[in-house]
Amino acid sequence: MAQSILGIMGPGEKATADNLEWAYEIGKLAARAGYVVLTGARRSGVMEAGLRGAKDAGGQTIGILPSKSKSDASPFADLVVVTGLNSARNYINALTADVMVVCGVEAGTLSEIALALKEQKHVVLITENERASAFLKDLSKEFVHVAAAPEEAMAIVNALLKNAAPN
Amino acid sequence: MAQSILGIMGPGEKATADNLEWAYEIGKLAARAGYVVLTGARRSGVMEAGLRGAKDAGGQTIGILPSKSKSDASPFADLVVVTGLNSARNYINALTADVMVVCGVEAGTLSEIALALKEQKHVVLITENERASAFLKDLSKEFVHVAAAPEEAMAIVNALLKNAAPN
Amino acid sequence: MAQSILGIMGPGEKATADNLEWAYEIGKLAARAGYVVLTGARRSGVMEAGLRGAKDAGGQTIGILPSKSKSDASPFADLVVVTGLNSARNYINALTADVMVVCGVEAGTLSEIALALKEQKHVVLITENERASAFLKDLSKEFVHVAAAPEEAMAIVNALLKNAAPN
Amino acid sequence: MAQSILGIMGPGEKATADNLEWAYEIGKLAARAGYVVLTGARRSGVMEAGLRGAKDAGGQTIGILPSKSKSDASPFADLVVVTGLNSARNYINALTADVMVVCGVEAGTLSEIALALKEQKHVVLITENERASAFLKDLSKEFVHVAAAPEEAMAIVNALLKNAAPN
Repeated sequence: MAQSILGIMGPGEKATADNLEWAYEIGKLAARAGYVVLTGARRSGVMEAGLRGAKDAGGQTIGILPSKSKSDASPFADLVVVTGLNSARNYINALTADVMVVCGVEAGTLSEIALALKEQKHVVLITENERASAFLKDLSKEFVHVAAAPEEAMAIVNALLKNAAPN
Repeated sequence: MAQSILGIMGPGEKATADNLEWAYEIGKLAARAGYVVLTGARRSGVMEAGLRGAKDAGGQTIGILPSKSKSDASPFADLVVVTGLNSARNYINALTADVMVVCGVEAGTLSEIALALKEQKHVVLITENERASAFLKDLSKEFVHVAAAPEEAMAIVNALLKNAAPN
Repeated sequence: MAQSILGIMGPGEKATADNLEWAYEIGKLAARAGYVVLTGARRSGVMEAGLRGAKDAGGQTIGILPSKSKSDASPFADLVVVTGLNSARNYINALTADVMVVCGVEAGTLSEIALALKEQKHVVLITENERASAFLKDLSKEFVHVAAAPEEAMAIVNALLKNAAPN
Repeated sequence: MAQSILGIMGPGEKATADNLEWAYEIGKLAARAGYVVLTGARRSGVMEAGLRGAKDAGGQTIGILPSKSKSDASPFADLVVVTGLNSARNYINALTADVMVVCGVEAGTLSEIALALKEQKHVVLITENERASAFLKDLSKEFVHVAAAPEEAMAIVNALLKNAAPN
């Protein structure tokens, strides 16, 4: 049976120290819980931090790359899916992650959140940006969840995936 | 030289009466200003209202369809681009529209806004949802514009496209 | 109602003089017959020759661009659809063209032929490569047509589109 | 470092008994050689046979699904990448597989071969269809390889991947 996949999404080059720490921590916790960690595969920001966290905890990782060149991928991605689709690959991230944890919001990440919600998939935000979380909660009370820290986010993920039938 | 394309984005089945009226009006104004009107092509909501407005003013229209079947398109789309990409076609909408006018925000539309901002393209929101406009302004002060009504939105579009070099 | 779209497919940089002449001629004939001409939009080979033929005969053109930048498009494309999908845009070419005329076969073009056949769409080959036409006929006797010259290809197209219900 | 991925491509519902046997055998041999096996993920034909072969030999598998629903995937896919892109996912198959082994050719498979060749990736055909192999060899002498049986195909794959720098 297919493995459960946890997406970790967030800024690349513009990630804050908090974003990176959250992503790394989620990667670790996800690996320990037995989930495969998925990110956007690039050698940057939340994408790389999440993969690195998972690898440091002995987990398995998959990266979905926007470019055409496998060599662009983070060395912490065990499996690299090369899409060549530029930001249209965000749709694949949204569909492939069983649940998505978001560590910081910029435009690319927002597109992944929005595409996940469009497909009625659950999104867990770690953020102190109350404007963002209020706005997104307005958009989808049922599928948007807000956590203050990685441990809380993982508790929500675990609860969601325990009850999940595959979509 | 390639024609200027104005995207009109917004809810499908969930569009409000206001959303539909704004979209129809923008379609009309865009046609009169000589822009080709682009929408997501489906027979529904803001997509169809924008195309209908443009056709009622004698304009030209293009629809970018998510499904594989041309027969799903609104009859108000002169040219139907059949993508078969489901919501990954939102990326094409964002890249193909020289400027995007947004008439109401739900998840699918939000993904188009976010993908446009990611690619540094201008987005004009017609909305009374202050939470949405404040949040999106936070995300990109330079590329997000807010208008109270279609005429104001078109004035912003005209100013933007007059100065635009093709991307 | 949506306009009929004729796709003209073939090599870019590697196009032969024959390929270019056929594409130009098909572009002209298609424009005179009232079809919109679609190509892959780049400033090169069969793509540009087909668009140029259509414009020289006063027709309308649309180009489906693989890159993210509208400025990459041929100046003979009236409408430029910017996909950013690299060669995944070949699927859109195959789905959007009501019928495809092929002027020379290399790898990219072959992918468009194959994707069209996969979707049960008609493909008209202008070619003297008997190995190619025999192989493709084997693949799909019903949807592959072979012509020796542009006039014959257009006669096949006209017969196909006259009877066509939109897919 | 990213794992090496071997793609196994071929017909779905129309696969012959030979196609299925080759795919199963390649799946087994690939798993024993330490490659991750990739297919198009559906519960059918060469896709499922290749995944099943790899699992029977204790290997790891990944499936790239054309639909939006993870539940469409073969139970022999460990990791399911959900694309929602219909046949545009064939481009991802072509880019993600380090080398592709083809067990039977129909339209969808041909598009994967063509997209791989377009991106200068190696394709190994197991086929007795001399028309197909002669035509494809014409298209790309350098990147098309022909084998009479799975063992010979794997010998070619091993030689190619030993020398490969990541693209």
